[in-house]
Amino acid sequence: MELLKKRILQDGRSLPGGILKVDSFLNHQLDPNLMYQVAEEFKRRFEGLNYNKIVTIEASGIAPAIMLGYITQLPVVFIKKKSPKTMENMLVSVVHSFTKDRDYTVCISKNFLTADDHVVFIDDFLAYGNAAMGMLDLAKQSGATVEGMGFIIEKSFQGGGDELRKMGLNIQSLAMVESLENCEIKIR
Amino acid sequence: MELLKKRILQDGRSLPGGILKVDSFLNHQLDPNLMYQVAEEFKRRFEGLNYNKIVTIEASGIAPAIMLGYITQLPVVFIKKKSPKTMENMLVSVVHSFTKDRDYTVCISKNFLTADDHVVFIDDFLAYGNAAMGMLDLAKQSGATVEGMGFIIEKSFQGGGDELRKMGLNIQSLAMVESLENCEIKIR
Repeated sequence: MELLKKRILQDGRSLPGGILKVDSFLNHQLDPNLMYQVAEEFKRRFEGLNYNKIVTIEASGIAPAIMLGYITQLPVVFIKKKSPKTMENMLVSVVHSFTKDRDYTVCISKNFLTADDHVVFIDDFLAYGNAAMGMLDLAKQSGATVEGMGFIIEKSFQGGGDELRKMGLNIQSLAMVESLENCEIKIR
Repeated sequence: MELLKKRILQDGRSLPGGILKVDSFLNHQLDPNLMYQVAEEFKRRFEGLNYNKIVTIEASGIAPAIMLGYITQLPVVFIKKKSPKTMENMLVSVVHSFTKDRDYTVCISKNFLTADDHVVFIDDFLAYGNAAMGMLDLAKQSGATVEGMGFIIEKSFQGGGDELRKMGLNIQSLAMVESLENCEIKIR
């Protein structure tokens, strides 16, 4: 997606530790038009798949996911990063965040992810693939089928994408960052 | 907003402790069409105000806020509930959550909330008003002007709305829940 690549090169910043800072348009301040165009691109890439629900994970996945839900007229569910008091009947998994260097619990209500669901998972970043693995674990527990996974930015050098593709999953990344070495952003 | 009221009465559930569970369409599973219509209503209510940015707080505020951003063609910033490693130059405030019975830190980058900004704040719930107070504190620190605050559901019996209106703020709530006593949802 050319527009996205240009934006990353223009406004992104490479920080030590393999971190790509895109907080001016993707995960702190959000550009609604870019989110809409990202969603259109996801719709195009998942055309022909039979899916009935969009699943994402809080917080930065919500904006592209709700836009995709709006365009496709499908409900969106966001996986929560803690177990809220008011949530009964949840499926739970544990995910390790390399960026934040800690484990966290993710959960989704059994009411909103069931064996009848065929879902597309959307997230802002694919790095080591830990959030995606958490999603797959929740899907397995529920019996739901993951038809595709869409990421706005994949950091291919961190290997999560390779692992997911080896599992035979339909992985779509709209921008593929190959390296952040020497504070330089290299996009395929 | 009639559509919203009907939906709350149809799909909402009143839980002990003044909790209104609306996780099938508002804060776990999301109805994208409802989010769009909610955003259109916010746009209508804030017509005539001079604002250049939408501010919300993760996670449940993001969906209505990005829709409002899309409709108004304005950028959206979401306040984060922790201090991410990669965020420099942040403004920080502490907010108490009655639902979760704990204090949490909220933060926003100084790059995205400045004295030049005239913002509309959007959130899913207005209860005791603590998240809103956190927003006002961040705005004060940055010098930004809060032109209006929009909430999808106000639980008027918890008093946050009264307090904010007493401060002279433009508070717009799309559904006003007056009581959740005896597991019955009463909407004005």
